[in-house]
Amino acid sequence: VTTFAAAAAALRAPDPASIDAARAHLDRLTKPIGSLGRLEELAVQLAGVAGACPPPLPEPAVVVVFAADHGVVAEGVTPWPQEVTAQMVANFCAGGAAINVLARHVGATVVVVDVGVAGALPELSAADDNGPRLIHARIAAGTANLARGAAMTTMQVQEALDVGCRTAQDLVASGARCLATGDMGIGNTTAAAATIAALTGRDAAEVTGRGTGIDDARLRHKIEIVEGAIARLVDRAPLAVLAEVGGLEIAALAGFIVGAGAAGVPVVIDGVIAAAALLAAATEAPAVLPYVVCGHRSTEPGATAVLDHLGLEPLLDLHLRLGEGTGACLALPILQASALILAEMATFDSAGVTKK
Amino acid sequence: VTTFAAAAAALRAPDPASIDAARAHLDRLTKPIGSLGRLEELAVQLAGVAGACPPPLPEPAVVVVFAADHGVVAEGVTPWPQEVTAQMVANFCAGGAAINVLARHVGATVVVVDVGVAGALPELSAADDNGPRLIHARIAAGTANLARGAAMTTMQVQEALDVGCRTAQDLVASGARCLATGDMGIGNTTAAAATIAALTGRDAAEVTGRGTGIDDARLRHKIEIVEGAIARLVDRAPLAVLAEVGGLEIAALAGFIVGAGAAGVPVVIDGVIAAAALLAAATEAPAVLPYVVCGHRSTEPGATAVLDHLGLEPLLDLHLRLGEGTGACLALPILQASALILAEMATFDSAGVTKK
Repeated sequence: VTTFAAAAAALRAPDPASIDAARAHLDRLTKPIGSLGRLEELAVQLAGVAGACPPPLPEPAVVVVFAADHGVVAEGVTPWPQEVTAQMVANFCAGGAAINVLARHVGATVVVVDVGVAGALPELSAADDNGPRLIHARIAAGTANLARGAAMTTMQVQEALDVGCRTAQDLVASGARCLATGDMGIGNTTAAAATIAALTGRDAAEVTGRGTGIDDARLRHKIEIVEGAIARLVDRAPLAVLAEVGGLEIAALAGFIVGAGAAGVPVVIDGVIAAAALLAAATEAPAVLPYVVCGHRSTEPGATAVLDHLGLEPLLDLHLRLGEGTGACLALPILQASALILAEMATFDSAGVTKK
Repeated sequence: VTTFAAAAAALRAPDPASIDAARAHLDRLTKPIGSLGRLEELAVQLAGVAGACPPPLPEPAVVVVFAADHGVVAEGVTPWPQEVTAQMVANFCAGGAAINVLARHVGATVVVVDVGVAGALPELSAADDNGPRLIHARIAAGTANLARGAAMTTMQVQEALDVGCRTAQDLVASGARCLATGDMGIGNTTAAAATIAALTGRDAAEVTGRGTGIDDARLRHKIEIVEGAIARLVDRAPLAVLAEVGGLEIAALAGFIVGAGAAGVPVVIDGVIAAAALLAAATEAPAVLPYVVCGHRSTEPGATAVLDHLGLEPLLDLHLRLGEGTGACLALPILQASALILAEMATFDSAGVTKK
């Protein structure tokens, strides 16, 4: 199962018996029924996708940062120069970025995948065995400018989907029991907004945000770029949308999400870039949704548009808008906590506590 | 500084120089300015209360579960028998309750303080050195029935405030760098609702919730009990309110919160019981607020009434209503993450990343 199509076809439905067993066990634990709120829902979800109660702990966890560049930066949609994508990949590999700090904190591993960085990547020393792993899987040196034509060929989208899918499958084969989405790519909130507008049917102005922080004039320009790009779409099938207005890391993330589900592990979704990928993945393969845990609500409007469209509620709302997987990473301890509740809490019987 | 009054007088204002230094450093880190949202605010808060940038990490953390009984259970405000308070103390000491599971998960220690349990506590073996510590500081065998008269004497309130305050100070003297509030007491959501109604001026019906889960008829009865109790109040000073309608663990928690602030460490607030205590503490000693981090939004309406009254926003909203310190505990990794961001992230200069 190493292609997106095969993974999508391999998605199993959650196991009803494990879900029932988890619900029944939660009600035997020493707490009022339902009093652990979303932790209980998460525990049931984990049992369902694992087909076991208690489910295995969702660890070790791996955060995969898919990095790629975007031709649309030529339109001035962001004040950051394109070279920052490659520089941040180097920062990830050196362990100095926010995602490195947060992943270390929660005991997760960071893996960086170059699926389309435009510039040369700095020489990366293999000296630090503890540093994040960099996987070279560059499909193109960034996308074409989505303001002027299709961002990618259909073949490139397929390659990116497959790279993402294989990455998930390989990590699970190596022992990962939870995956989390990360991203890096200067200009990628423009591609994400266009993907989200196309697949939710919302107006560009509703789903386009300030990204890393742009002023009103630049935001208006960004919205016009998104409007123009989605106006070209004749086919709104997810893969056609990704090709026309998406990004290499967005397509790879869509493959990664489906690959995680096909491998039977939960996948924690980060912010707006991951939300665009999730929307494409879930539109194409709705059976992936039981494997999905939304880590946080990004301040980008497109992220909330996707959550609403798919009927999902994120675990955290900390006003983050950094990406890299930071919000997904911060949600991991909550997901782990839900599994621990099911595995470790005493029951009324075992603790000798009177029931009401 | 071992009494509540002395601790309240000893509260220092946050250090403006450390706050400025934290803000300036956050803007040098390899991320768009402000993109880590509430993590950045927390980092600034920690720097301010520590008077240092970067601030010390808020660990080791200790969750203190203050346990006490409530005479008002005689009115049938809860379906749970009073003996459950003592049984749950035994469960805490055996490590099987939700707070034990979550504290282990986040690397925090659990300390249980009996400030007013009604029943005999089960024989607690000292065999397990890794088990939670139980501190015997029983002031009374539960409060009097607040439906019929004052729950406590003024002297009992003072004792409870001082026990809580000393507990915080002792833990910080022993090395704790972050404290979190926990509680256990069958009937305590009635006392908390009455305290919150009295100190916010809201109607009983607005702040009284279903606690561990009661039906409509019992909720109406509970609201009438709260209404009747607060109608007796002639003095709405926090300590007078606590004496008339509060609880021993609520008063101890108020002392604990102020004691933490006086000892210079952040204190993470749990649900509605802790919120009632915080409201009393902050009304009496507003200078404690900079030391306070609200862990989560309980589903109990009284908790949100306190958050709104004090202008506080919690970190998590996971629909919890268990108490014990569970919501505070789940917020600890986020607080720790904020300090780690300030301490460990690379700057644009150090990482060689171009600024916009």
